[in-house]
Amino acid sequence: MTSFIDIKAESDFSLQNLPYGVFSTCDNPRHRIGVAIGDLILDLSVVASLFDGPHLRDHQGVFKESTLNSFMSLGRASWDEVRQRLQVLLGSNDATLRDDSDLRAKALVEQSKATMHLPATIGDYTDFYSSIHHATNVGTMFRGKENALMPNWRHLPVGYHGRASSVVVSGTPLHRPVGQTRPDDTKPPVFGPCKLLDFELEMAFFTGPPNKLGQPITMENAEDHMFGMVLMNDWSARDIQKWEYVPLGPFLAKNFGTSISPWVVPMAALKPFMVDNFVQEPAVLPYLYHDDKYNIDINLEVAIKPETSAKATTVCRSNFRYMYWTVKQQLVHHTVTGCNTRPGDLLASGTISGPTEDSFGSMLELSWRGSKTVDLGEGVTRKFIQDGDEVIVSGYCQGEGYRVGFGTCTGKILPAITK
Amino acid sequence: MTSFIDIKAESDFSLQNLPYGVFSTCDNPRHRIGVAIGDLILDLSVVASLFDGPHLRDHQGVFKESTLNSFMSLGRASWDEVRQRLQVLLGSNDATLRDDSDLRAKALVEQSKATMHLPATIGDYTDFYSSIHHATNVGTMFRGKENALMPNWRHLPVGYHGRASSVVVSGTPLHRPVGQTRPDDTKPPVFGPCKLLDFELEMAFFTGPPNKLGQPITMENAEDHMFGMVLMNDWSARDIQKWEYVPLGPFLAKNFGTSISPWVVPMAALKPFMVDNFVQEPAVLPYLYHDDKYNIDINLEVAIKPETSAKATTVCRSNFRYMYWTVKQQLVHHTVTGCNTRPGDLLASGTISGPTEDSFGSMLELSWRGSKTVDLGEGVTRKFIQDGDEVIVSGYCQGEGYRVGFGTCTGKILPAITK
Ligand SMILES: [Ca+2]
Ligand SMILES: [Ca+2]
Ligand SMILES: [Mg+2]
Ligand SMILES: [Mg+2]
Ligand code: NI
Repeated sequence: MTSFIDIKAESDFSLQNLPYGVFSTCDNPRHRIGVAIGDLILDLSVVASLFDGPHLRDHQGVFKESTLNSFMSLGRASWDEVRQRLQVLLGSNDATLRDDSDLRAKALVEQSKATMHLPATIGDYTDFYSSIHHATNVGTMFRGKENALMPNWRHLPVGYHGRASSVVVSGTPLHRPVGQTRPDDTKPPVFGPCKLLDFELEMAFFTGPPNKLGQPITMENAEDHMFGMVLMNDWSARDIQKWEYVPLGPFLAKNFGTSISPWVVPMAALKPFMVDNFVQEPAVLPYLYHDDKYNIDINLEVAIKPETSAKATTVCRSNFRYMYWTVKQQLVHHTVTGCNTRPGDLLASGTISGPTEDSFGSMLELSWRGSKTVDLGEGVTRKFIQDGDEVIVSGYCQGEGYRVGFGTCTGKILPAITK
Repeated sequence: MTSFIDIKAESDFSLQNLPYGVFSTCDNPRHRIGVAIGDLILDLSVVASLFDGPHLRDHQGVFKESTLNSFMSLGRASWDEVRQRLQVLLGSNDATLRDDSDLRAKALVEQSKATMHLPATIGDYTDFYSSIHHATNVGTMFRGKENALMPNWRHLPVGYHGRASSVVVSGTPLHRPVGQTRPDDTKPPVFGPCKLLDFELEMAFFTGPPNKLGQPITMENAEDHMFGMVLMNDWSARDIQKWEYVPLGPFLAKNFGTSISPWVVPMAALKPFMVDNFVQEPAVLPYLYHDDKYNIDINLEVAIKPETSAKATTVCRSNFRYMYWTVKQQLVHHTVTGCNTRPGDLLASGTISGPTEDSFGSMLELSWRGSKTVDLGEGVTRKFIQDGDEVIVSGYCQGEGYRVGFGTCTGKILPAITK
């Protein structure tokens, strides 16, 4: 499968990938839907009429919208039809686009000239806690090795509702949050800029067609409701979190910003990279059981670029396959009470830590609660994130001679605003 | 201040109230914005052109929309202008509507003939935990009297992000949720219908104009961002909650449905009922401090009507003034990290329990964790909510010869769906 567009072997955006995003350009500020291919974007608002298969024929309008929500709502048969058409249109054997320089000039945009936007209006955002290494690390730090995992952890994918309004697209700078903390348990709480600012290496998936309130999504139809995945950095203020989170969970510590990568990789593009699920002991309840492979081999990396450094230094190499709970289990659990989902809801994995120290997905774990430093080269070290630091999350699946990649999810921390 | 419309003294919807809602009728299924007055609704989509003041003149379109979000976004000066105009138009001295029977026939609809809908598209829904009596009751049950309040409780309004998708309008029946619980700690968890279904008597406010990400709402401008209030029943599955909630807070136990009353009472209508704030000891940090009265004297009541009973029996009489944290403090705290709000976000109080046993706002407290029964008359008793029970929340402020009321927030529990 080759494209008439020149795509390097190490490009994230192969013909096997075809992720969807929302972009604008200087000469056309309208937010519109595109597909990443090599270094280019195919502007679907320009070529909408080429999607004339039985499913899309009457729904070409979804590609004229400014978010992916309507396309997400169409469902798997439509997504598959579009994907097949895209692989033909962008393939080396079809003349429609390849041989029409006028159309190519209108429909293909250089990624370097585009500004990316949030791919969807996010109705609800949920964050899980599904890496056993991460949960064990954090539990060990705060409760000791024996009580590291809570009794419920192996029985259900623990999660919580997050803040949808503050999910931002990669590249959006964020101010260090200000808030209430209690650094000394013997003294009253204090107010000021967060001192223990952290990233969390995560991934998240967008939902597709809705389920009605009262009608759970079952394991059998879970895939029909999963559109695609992005990288995520769930910025976390550890000192605010520690003081506020008992007994109702993280609140302000997580609501000042959550960054996601702009390109949504279709679940279909991830299918070749499904690997064995994590062995779950004890066995899960029947509603959570599935035996098809749904762990995904996605190489993940986090790098930090201090403002004073010329380059970013990798601090973590992890993999999505370290997840204990699968995305299907997360979605089924989330809706088992009858909770309804809407197209464009975002369900995040939780911090993705691997078994080794260099695969931990947060500074909390990498610096083991600040007890050691993380080396950034040139004599620079970190325990937590400093002002001016840019955090860069990247990830890809490695095929034979091609990649299905996610691009990057970046965010720079600006100083706190303290009038 | 009197209206040309006949309004009984005990009507919730006096000329001093004028709450906004979204309704439709049999002969016109379009969702449109109205104002409750006595037993009628003034259809603002019909009289939009009458709002010709300096603020609304160019924004009459907000009354042609199907939700209140755009009107909410206009801000306080606009809300005040509309409210003043409404009090004139519906007052006994203005002829515009009073003497135009054609216009009256088009613009006034009987509430009994209208179907109410969600007043706004809710971007994010947050639930606080701001009644000290409720927090103390629950803490006493689960941790004993000495450790009833967590160390953070008196320092900040504890809250968590809830599920926006499943907020439903009063009258929407809900199925008993199904899920995972662990009734016996020595045995594995089990799956099935919730056995400890509860209501939570709450109120909530809708936000107005947005604040930008990174720019907190301060105490000085908090009121500019508060549109109005509704009654809420935060349905809660106690057995699911107990098993799932550590360490990240309530999740599925609360996401199967949250009911709100359809009429949004403007903050301006509540101003005459502001009373002394709860005395906060120790003193709060400066960002949370305000000395203007912002507790509100709202009489609240919860009644239960079993399917087999002819009438509902009141099980709780409480008051919004029992809140320890004010709504202004909740909003300021919520955004202190820079969290952005959008018009139509919903911030709920948490269960509103008073100091006496008959004022407790949940079955958990009324039955003291199931250790005693609540009498519903005719020999019927309850510890928690049974299938077929309808829960009816009502509330009003009592003025001299008039009321500013909220109507009711009702919901009936249907049996669990277990295919
Ligand atoms: Ca997280
Ligand atoms: Ca609640
Ligand atoms: Mg976050
Ligand atoms: Mg609820
Ligand atoms: Ni833009």
